[in-house]
Amino acid sequence: MPAEPTTFITPDALLAHWQGHRRLTRRVIDAFPEDQFLTFSLGGMRPFSTLAMELVSMALPMVQGLASGEWTMPNNREPQPKAEVLRLWDEATSQMNEVWPQIPPQKFLETIKAFGQWPGVVHDLVLYVVDNEIHHRGQGYVYLRALGIAPPAFYDRS
Amino acid sequence: MPAEPTTFITPDALLAHWQGHRRLTRRVIDAFPEDQFLTFSLGGMRPFSTLAMELVSMALPMVQGLASGEWTMPNNREPQPKAEVLRLWDEATSQMNEVWPQIPPQKFLETIKAFGQWPGVVHDLVLYVVDNEIHHRGQGYVYLRALGIAPPAFYDRS
Repeated sequence: MPAEPTTFITPDALLAHWQGHRRLTRRVIDAFPEDQFLTFSLGGMRPFSTLAMELVSMALPMVQGLASGEWTMPNNREPQPKAEVLRLWDEATSQMNEVWPQIPPQKFLETIKAFGQWPGVVHDLVLYVVDNEIHHRGQGYVYLRALGIAPPAFYDRS
Repeated sequence: MPAEPTTFITPDALLAHWQGHRRLTRRVIDAFPEDQFLTFSLGGMRPFSTLAMELVSMALPMVQGLASGEWTMPNNREPQPKAEVLRLWDEATSQMNEVWPQIPPQKFLETIKAFGQWPGVVHDLVLYVVDNEIHHRGQGYVYLRALGIAPPAFYDRS
């Protein structure tokens, strides 16, 4: 059996890092006025409600798929009012904490097809979901600034 | 000696992941017309040249600090023309590949003060630099869309 590869970050610490991002993204969702959450856009891009529902459709389903090997593509990516997005967000946050420890640790270094269609090493697939959240949240910062609203501090993950 | 902690991602794979992001960010920088790179802004935010120079000021200096234990805060964060930012970008990309392997692997799990002032576990400090790049690049996507320019594909890291 080969030696365990050197660690940049452990699965536990990665989840903690991700949940820090999720707390910040939740604050960005909550910073939008209800109507602009559903309608405001710049450059023909999607409103933040639609972007947030994309994030909801990826995070918990990825974790569940890795833990169970069963991939379910969420069919609800329609924009939702803020209260509903926040409810789905909090539910997923809690379930992710429960399901993540069920992923076998060696899994993160395996090459798989996520959702039956996206090939990659599991750590890259997970980071894709985190990075996509950061990417769209950064766009939400521009929407908020353009609306005259100061966004939450990027460095605060508490 | 305790067992090596479980690995989510190795240092080598994390650098490869980061360099994939850097290739995408380079394409976003290059997608801006020269004048708008220096001047275009939404919501009172900084032009993309200034954001890109912030990224330049963080990436290689973080890697160098971790490898050597000596922290130099770059004093040039002034906006630069596109050709100069791309030159600095490519130089840093190459140097990061050289210096990263000199970081002792156990370093990533230690708690330090980066640049003598930001405390944290090294993996979180490194991810902060990567995440900050993704965050500001996402803002660059909105600038490009508002300028009527299609940004490069987010998923393409080649």
